[in-house]
Amino acid sequence: MERDMTPSEDFVVTDRGGIVENSHRVHAAVVDAKGRLLYTLGNPARLTLARSAAKPAQALAILETEGFAGYGFDDADIALMCASHSSEERHIARTRTMLSKVKAEEADLRCGGHPSLSETVNRSWIRQDFIPTAVCSNCSGKHVGMLAGARAIGAGMEGYHLPDHPMQETVKRTVAELCDLDAREVEWGIDGCNLPTPAFPLDRLARIYAKLAAAADGDDAGDRPSTRGPALARIFHAMAGHPDMVAGEGRYCTLLMCAFDGALIGKLGADASYAIGVRASDATRRLGTDGALGISVKIEDGNLEILYAVVTELLERLGIGSPDIRSQLAPFHHPQRVNTMGVTTGGVFFPFKLRGSKPDGDDPHPAA
Amino acid sequence: MERDMTPSEDFVVTDRGGIVENSHRVHAAVVDAKGRLLYTLGNPARLTLARSAAKPAQALAILETEGFAGYGFDDADIALMCASHSSEERHIARTRTMLSKVKAEEADLRCGGHPSLSETVNRSWIRQDFIPTAVCSNCSGKHVGMLAGARAIGAGMEGYHLPDHPMQETVKRTVAELCDLDAREVEWGIDGCNLPTPAFPLDRLARIYAKLAAAADGDDAGDRPSTRGPALARIFHAMAGHPDMVAGEGRYCTLLMCAFDGALIGKLGADASYAIGVRASDATRRLGTDGALGISVKIEDGNLEILYAVVTELLERLGIGSPDIRSQLAPFHHPQRVNTMGVTTGGVFFPFKLRGSKPDGDDPHPAA
Repeated sequence: MERDMTPSEDFVVTDRGGIVENSHRVHAAVVDAKGRLLYTLGNPARLTLARSAAKPAQALAILETEGFAGYGFDDADIALMCASHSSEERHIARTRTMLSKVKAEEADLRCGGHPSLSETVNRSWIRQDFIPTAVCSNCSGKHVGMLAGARAIGAGMEGYHLPDHPMQETVKRTVAELCDLDAREVEWGIDGCNLPTPAFPLDRLARIYAKLAAAADGDDAGDRPSTRGPALARIFHAMAGHPDMVAGEGRYCTLLMCAFDGALIGKLGADASYAIGVRASDATRRLGTDGALGISVKIEDGNLEILYAVVTELLERLGIGSPDIRSQLAPFHHPQRVNTMGVTTGGVFFPFKLRGSKPDGDDPHPAA
Repeated sequence: MERDMTPSEDFVVTDRGGIVENSHRVHAAVVDAKGRLLYTLGNPARLTLARSAAKPAQALAILETEGFAGYGFDDADIALMCASHSSEERHIARTRTMLSKVKAEEADLRCGGHPSLSETVNRSWIRQDFIPTAVCSNCSGKHVGMLAGARAIGAGMEGYHLPDHPMQETVKRTVAELCDLDAREVEWGIDGCNLPTPAFPLDRLARIYAKLAAAADGDDAGDRPSTRGPALARIFHAMAGHPDMVAGEGRYCTLLMCAFDGALIGKLGADASYAIGVRASDATRRLGTDGALGISVKIEDGNLEILYAVVTELLERLGIGSPDIRSQLAPFHHPQRVNTMGVTTGGVFFPFKLRGSKPDGDDPHPAA
């Protein structure tokens, strides 16, 4: 690529034969567990619908309900509560088991079926003329969790998904607290799965994940209420320990967490948001924090292929993980853009520059 | 939507519960057949890979080869040369018939199979374990046309798809002439189907389509060589008369041309470019031209759902066609954004403003 690939600032660019094909605006924030901005890209304060990247925060509200322990959920169940899974047989089977732990039935779920996020699963469904139902929803774990929470707080399961149900009021409070925002500062839309989904400045999403990682380090990061550390840590360990439950075969979140083997958690949100929580390490210390850090990303136009490429590029720029670890994500970092005859037609480029919060803090590892 | 949906300038915005979810930068040009800019949006000079929107220009090079008439191609064949078809049985069958007219075989094609652009076709292929081959390529008609052209100019079919093959040299000259550019001013990449694909300023794509429509009106628009009017007119009439060949069941190009019943042609390019040629009418006169006009659009990030919405919005803003005609495209104009339980979660909004070339020429019909 010898051509000047402008627009460069805060953009990812794809080319065909050296000619710019598309460009995609990127926003990102890198923060510590207190929310201090370490690096930014685009607008780190962009009001962003976190979608499924908010699931660990929604799960926290469930874990904190009195009586939650009584259901006997294990860590893989909690991972499924935080998942956008591929509707593989293991995910559907676990959903059914979780329903039985809540003494609920599929008919109690207020999500609907949809094509799987996995092409392999879809092909198999089409071959079998299978019509996916609520237990197949990629958000089924979150929905069973909400049923459990609703029952645990004595509010009843009916209407558990509605914004004014006591369980959703509990979720709203918890999400706002985790963001260090007043509940009125968090806005809510309706998600694809029919539950309320929050919107807040993008850096607050990074802060949530920094807190999850800090809790896994046994560091309460000054969070209030400080008693929530164990629940945050349990969510981190559940996701990091069961990456196959969080997404599925060949999916980015699963491969990322497998590659990093407990050092971080990562979660996709629809329309191209992403969040990562990284436990304290030499890498986070080099980046300016003694503790954990969080990364959040939003592609302005919602493109998922570009999202995965950017997240992987940011891990490289920030020096998180070894080259060997990151190389496991190479197909997402530099997606092969070959045509129907196998000829390479172009690539994905990252002309953007991370901005550091300190005068000399720009781009710890700029692109070559 | 009461919220201020900034960024508004040159952007399309989607929302969820009144919160901006994604935004998409839009470029557009509206020109007459001499290339005079009537209206613009974003950057009308954006260097744009026209992809399959360039097919009518590539087809012109084929139609102008000496001996082309000898193959006995009919108008539906020519429509298929300009198509990004859905690989329906009628498209594959016509591809095979066209191959026999050229005395060529599927093995001579240098495109590859790929999943159909139609989900219905894909599901049927999956059920039958069908592996698509070259005749199923959405560009199969263009490829057979190139075989015909290569043979017609006596260059042989071998390597017909390579940039330095005499047929592709012919295509390069023709495309540049049609754009009123020097051949060196048009850049070329390799397309998904393995043929060279041109890049030029976006308004030149609109100019090509204005010329196609002008030719259908019997107006040579001062084009050089002026002898190409009949071939341009034949391409226009072939596409307008066979919209089912240009795309397929339920596809935008097909529905658009069916709705407008000969008054215009429209063609998609991959990564969200689009071009329309509109024959002279009261509507084009109101917009400031005595003759035909052309419209070209590119979504900066390549999003097709947004592209179709924008193209339909532009037709409404420009007052092209009656409300009854345009209403046939309503599902593309205002795509239903409902979740897996059928609840509406948001919409697509067009806060942009068309800029006119005359001082009082802005937005003939601004959005309400």
